[in-house]
Amino acid sequence: MLSQESIENYFLNLQDEICKGLENADGKGKFQEDLWKRPEGGGGRTRIIANGNVIEKGGVNFSAVSGPCPDFLRKEAGLKENEQADFYATGVSLVIHPVNPMAPIIHMNVRYLKAGNLEWFGGGIDLTPHYIFEEDAKFFHTHLKKVCDGHNASYYPEFKKWADDYFFIQHRNETRGIGGIFFDRLSATDSIKIEDRFNFVQGVGNSFLQAYLPLIEKYKNKPFTEANKQWQLLRRGRYVEFNLVYDRGTKFGLLTNGRTESILMSLPPTANWEYANQPEKGSEEEKTLGLLKKGIEWGELEKEN
Amino acid sequence: MLSQESIENYFLNLQDEICKGLENADGKGKFQEDLWKRPEGGGGRTRIIANGNVIEKGGVNFSAVSGPCPDFLRKEAGLKENEQADFYATGVSLVIHPVNPMAPIIHMNVRYLKAGNLEWFGGGIDLTPHYIFEEDAKFFHTHLKKVCDGHNASYYPEFKKWADDYFFIQHRNETRGIGGIFFDRLSATDSIKIEDRFNFVQGVGNSFLQAYLPLIEKYKNKPFTEANKQWQLLRRGRYVEFNLVYDRGTKFGLLTNGRTESILMSLPPTANWEYANQPEKGSEEEKTLGLLKKGIEWGELEKEN
Repeated sequence: MLSQESIENYFLNLQDEICKGLENADGKGKFQEDLWKRPEGGGGRTRIIANGNVIEKGGVNFSAVSGPCPDFLRKEAGLKENEQADFYATGVSLVIHPVNPMAPIIHMNVRYLKAGNLEWFGGGIDLTPHYIFEEDAKFFHTHLKKVCDGHNASYYPEFKKWADDYFFIQHRNETRGIGGIFFDRLSATDSIKIEDRFNFVQGVGNSFLQAYLPLIEKYKNKPFTEANKQWQLLRRGRYVEFNLVYDRGTKFGLLTNGRTESILMSLPPTANWEYANQPEKGSEEEKTLGLLKKGIEWGELEKEN
Repeated sequence: MLSQESIENYFLNLQDEICKGLENADGKGKFQEDLWKRPEGGGGRTRIIANGNVIEKGGVNFSAVSGPCPDFLRKEAGLKENEQADFYATGVSLVIHPVNPMAPIIHMNVRYLKAGNLEWFGGGIDLTPHYIFEEDAKFFHTHLKKVCDGHNASYYPEFKKWADDYFFIQHRNETRGIGGIFFDRLSATDSIKIEDRFNFVQGVGNSFLQAYLPLIEKYKNKPFTEANKQWQLLRRGRYVEFNLVYDRGTKFGLLTNGRTESILMSLPPTANWEYANQPEKGSEEEKTLGLLKKGIEWGELEKEN
């Protein structure tokens, strides 16, 4: 039997570890913490970093909220009419926007929910490079596959496809980035215990720094041009479009009176929009656009070369 | 009986007049035109201006589209099951983001729709100052009131309230700007002919340049600081939030496979997000935030002084 305390403690420690690792890598930026409480129960620890050497803006948020089970979950939670029950949800969510356009944006979320009969874990990690470098994409996906394979051979192929489908900007007909893994409502099954799900989620959370730090270390001192920066700002505009138009967590949070500043920490420090921007033929920018599609098996690229 | 041709011609001419007026006021920027066709019928004339003396980015779009009546309109249009009918929609939509943070963003939309029994006009004009100057707000609302009063004494109070309610950023608990007028589905009634509705919409469209040019003329040569520009970028961030999270036209367009680049011409050239920004006590920025609320009777401020 999992205790809420053990899960919550894990997420609190994870937030600490990740913030420490990112601060070390940045060398200048420091996380600022805001503690907040939710009138209906629970609260959170929002941590924001800005204007660092490496990180232009980022947030690593912890929350643990509870209260009467919200209406949209009652049926799924198996509650009878007028039956009283509480829900409890906890997790860590982060987005990092780097200074250097050659370094990618990263997003991770790991979370747990319990309400009535419902008990599940969800989350994922995905990467949004402004410029897609195939060796980095291969590194990132190979890393995630290894984490997944340690728990269940079906996880990586399933959750990789889920990320491709989820992080998709319909109105642009392009993926947000190179995806990663995405999983939701992982409950216990006949063959998988809820403790196994928790182990997997810990594996994902614990692997974050190994997945991201090499990528920011690699690019933090690489030179870039004003044109590279402009391209980064346009790509950040797409990130804003995805988060405000499609992202379920963002929409759900905003429409249910969540803490706006914590939810919108995912938005970039600066983003640009330009009418009908078209990169030059043969440019790195055009190559990146051509790779923003579902179904690329990044981890297997080596075999093709 | 109104002809679609006369309405379409009016909107085409209106687009021409407005583009000419804005180019004259700018003195440098020129509109670039993209003609587009819609596979299902009709098309549009998208006109974009960027990097002018006065206008940093803006669009003035005309469209006239037609085809089989979309499902969501069939019931309202009084169509029987399997009954075939076409819809026709035409209009002009514009958004202008000025260079100078002291000058306001403006948005106007005027449109006509016919489908089965349905025939209506909709639209509005609203102003989003980065800094709210009460004399400008009074000028703008007094102007709109005059336009409305020439047609129907109930229009201004009704459409002003509608704008306050519509241009509201729920998750920030603030209005997008100082509002203006907003009206939708204005059909013929026992006492108002559809021709009268068209006359009113023409009155609104024709008044656009008189409403906006004085405001950009007034500020185009006024000095501003880097801090003013930063504040403008944060306010533009809120504009992005409104358009992507709430604006019905934007959401409808994106989710029904509209022409993305024409729809998103409303987004600013650059926008910023900063965690939990709080203007200094007593600053112009704080004063502006305090005025972003519903129900201010801008046109009557003089009486109070």
